[in-house]
Amino acid sequence: MVSVEPLAERDIITTARTRTEQVLAQVFERATPVAGELDAAMRYGVLGGGKRLRPVLVYAAGRALGAADTALDAPAAAIELIHAYSLIHDDLPAMDDDDMRRGRPTVHRVYNEAMAILTGDALQTLAFEVLAEARPPRLGAMVGALAHASGRDGMAAGQALDLCAVGGQLDVDALATMHRYKTGALIRAAVRLGALAAVDEDDPRVAALDAYAAAIGLAFQIQDDILDVAGDAATLGKATGADAARAKPTYPALLGLEGARAKALGLLDEALDALAPLGERAFPLADLARHMIDRDH
Amino acid sequence: MVSVEPLAERDIITTARTRTEQVLAQVFERATPVAGELDAAMRYGVLGGGKRLRPVLVYAAGRALGAADTALDAPAAAIELIHAYSLIHDDLPAMDDDDMRRGRPTVHRVYNEAMAILTGDALQTLAFEVLAEARPPRLGAMVGALAHASGRDGMAAGQALDLCAVGGQLDVDALATMHRYKTGALIRAAVRLGALAAVDEDDPRVAALDAYAAAIGLAFQIQDDILDVAGDAATLGKATGADAARAKPTYPALLGLEGARAKALGLLDEALDALAPLGERAFPLADLARHMIDRDH
Repeated sequence: MVSVEPLAERDIITTARTRTEQVLAQVFERATPVAGELDAAMRYGVLGGGKRLRPVLVYAAGRALGAADTALDAPAAAIELIHAYSLIHDDLPAMDDDDMRRGRPTVHRVYNEAMAILTGDALQTLAFEVLAEARPPRLGAMVGALAHASGRDGMAAGQALDLCAVGGQLDVDALATMHRYKTGALIRAAVRLGALAAVDEDDPRVAALDAYAAAIGLAFQIQDDILDVAGDAATLGKATGADAARAKPTYPALLGLEGARAKALGLLDEALDALAPLGERAFPLADLARHMIDRDH
Repeated sequence: MVSVEPLAERDIITTARTRTEQVLAQVFERATPVAGELDAAMRYGVLGGGKRLRPVLVYAAGRALGAADTALDAPAAAIELIHAYSLIHDDLPAMDDDDMRRGRPTVHRVYNEAMAILTGDALQTLAFEVLAEARPPRLGAMVGALAHASGRDGMAAGQALDLCAVGGQLDVDALATMHRYKTGALIRAAVRLGALAAVDEDDPRVAALDAYAAAIGLAFQIQDDILDVAGDAATLGKATGADAARAKPTYPALLGLEGARAKALGLLDEALDALAPLGERAFPLADLARHMIDRDH
């Protein structure tokens, strides 16, 4: 009997993704949007698939500390809304100028540049609105963590560092710093929000989960770089070789493909070590880390 | 003796502006920004003057219901950060394509388009961070009100309606709807945040202040339209005649200059009527409303 439940629990990627889609769909189920085109563009940018990695992390981290899924819905939706906004703005002509995302035209290609800017803006706002409306017990800590990870001390700072790095020379340390902010901060925030749904900020398990999140965040980015060199465009849903074409610094360029793979595997070990004190309940987080490094898209 | 304090109290515009500048400066007083250029662009976009109308409204509304200034600092800063972000994005080439703002080059002219997008993004995030870090008693209601007023049900929706209206025909009702979202929502949020620093959402004085805010919000926009036709570029710090050049619908175009002035004065009366139940403590709010309609910049 004991063997059944853990197995079901460990299929967290599928169940958390399904739940995320339902929660996000609910956010957009309203009778009368004020501005129809903005509403449509927001839906297009959010409901168009994606791995839902960050929400899955929210559910897995929260469950590992005993939170109910219902307490994790708003944080999971909020973090995905922030992620969706960042993709829309990153794809803009003035930024990475990408035409395709998740196998479909990017928001500014379907609508236009002005609407894409507004859509990203409104999705960021919506993230905080969804979180606030849920009125979770540790709302202040959650809003603070999400904002800190998204703005001048997190994702936006990382994107600024990235903009300045294109065409320039970054060593491995500077590259890790850039990624720590650009993608790592939001991955850590996902894990933290999940944890905060269950326990206070100063609980030592929050620190353990943060060490886990920091390691998988960087490993995830290294795997992204590897896929850009060695991946398949059809599987990825976007063009490969884009980093090299833009002279963006990458791990494979600095360490070689095998060196980058070894680095990612080392970080996976770090992540798994960090989970050790949490016991069986953290098994899905361990599976998730392995999945993130093995992925082909 | 009694006559002295009210007089000092009534000079709320000057004292609230001074306090706002100090609070905003503190938000940016940090030793080590992660991304130097982003930090500089954020400072440029926020600390470059401006009327600080929305923070002044936060202080005036909060004081009218008995809130201490210290409880109003974070909401005041948050609302101004949202306003600053919206100006930076509205000025972008893909939006209004403005070169000047507050008598200085716009953020994308000083930095570049990518950095201006990021700067706006990070300022929006910072608004929610500043509010969350202050941990006010009614944080959930405050974050909810600020987000609702800023996003798809407020400012962003209004900007989307405005984008769709350029070159088209709007009647007076459609124009009022657009402004209710584009500028009115944030003005109402300013008053609401001030009120929430003192009392719960269901306090009847919150509804009275909201009626005041709705009236001055539209009056403010009509005055903006009037100044664009009849104002002086040097006093305004931006070009005049811009609305007509872009075929943007305006009140003077629809009602004539005198008709627009009469409409603004009618709204001023509405605003003053709404304040009546609040007594003497609301005098500064009344002064503020008169000031907003009399202003020449």
